[in-house]
Amino acid sequence: MEDKQKETAEFEQTENAETYVEADQTAGSEPSDNEGETAETTEEQQRISELETNLADTENRLLRVQADFENFKRRTREDNAAQLKYKSQSLLTQLLPALDNFERALDVKVEDAQAASVLQGVEMVYRQLLEAMKSEGLEVIDSEGSAFDPNLHQAVMQVQDEKYESNVVVETLQKGYRLKDRVIRPAMVKVNQ
Amino acid sequence: MEDKQKETAEFEQTENAETYVEADQTAGSEPSDNEGETAETTEEQQRISELETNLADTENRLLRVQADFENFKRRTREDNAAQLKYKSQSLLTQLLPALDNFERALDVKVEDAQAASVLQGVEMVYRQLLEAMKSEGLEVIDSEGSAFDPNLHQAVMQVQDEKYESNVVVETLQKGYRLKDRVIRPAMVKVNQ
Repeated sequence: MEDKQKETAEFEQTENAETYVEADQTAGSEPSDNEGETAETTEEQQRISELETNLADTENRLLRVQADFENFKRRTREDNAAQLKYKSQSLLTQLLPALDNFERALDVKVEDAQAASVLQGVEMVYRQLLEAMKSEGLEVIDSEGSAFDPNLHQAVMQVQDEKYESNVVVETLQKGYRLKDRVIRPAMVKVNQ
Repeated sequence: MEDKQKETAEFEQTENAETYVEADQTAGSEPSDNEGETAETTEEQQRISELETNLADTENRLLRVQADFENFKRRTREDNAAQLKYKSQSLLTQLLPALDNFERALDVKVEDAQAASVLQGVEMVYRQLLEAMKSEGLEVIDSEGSAFDPNLHQAVMQVQDEKYESNVVVETLQKGYRLKDRVIRPAMVKVNQ
């Protein structure tokens, strides 16, 4: 709410700056017209005309710098917000292959008790890792059973399966991930024709 | 190199701005002195004095805004650099407890082949995770055998052991980590008295 008011204020200031420029250009050219007409220009009048032009120029420059400054501040605020929002992207992207391998390692079938106990221990670690990544905004992209979406899915295989509707994702070959609203890795999928 | 030149340019501008302010304050007060002395002030002279004051004020404001703008730009550059440098800190800090648990899970002694094979698989995952974290600037803090340093180590136990020198870290109870030059978790250690 407050931000919106600021934005409006900035916009008005820029508008004013432009209006000012035009007005001052007219003002600046006036003295020379008078000069021709009256031919009575004293030293003082010349000084006044000089000062008026100079003042108008300086005021214009001030308004321009102020407008530039406000624009720069607004852009900086926007850039910072984006940088903050996606700050974990680089580390998350690097962790994804390890996460894939973790899932593969947990997928083995074991028979003996000791192996099962080891698996159980590292499965807890896997869940803890995933939770930490999710708390920074990581989300798994839904794929199996969803309609194929080229923004979220990368089709690496096509099948013909009457059990599914056309253009539906039949199987996920590699999970896809989003960081908040940004896809950082599309899901690799098998799609029904 | 280019950045350094910019910095110098900014500094000079700020310096000029200050010099300017002083000069203009003197200039601004002159007309009123003359007014008192000559008592011949015509309408034009009054207008000139008015314009001069106005011009000096506007010039001062312009210089101040320019200096503020330059300072803001410099600060923004510095803030951005810091934000970029430590951008992964929040995710890394959240991953550390999972990394601790991973190490504990890998520390079990197993006898049978299947359990050993499971362990071997997840150990590769552990190394891959750690490499990804290191590539973003994570570093393990040296502790065992090092002199105790309160900036890097948190002493949670004291021992008396003649094998070690005084004030030396005898054992690490929990690994400490740095992100580049910043300690994000001190090592919890046992120190020799």
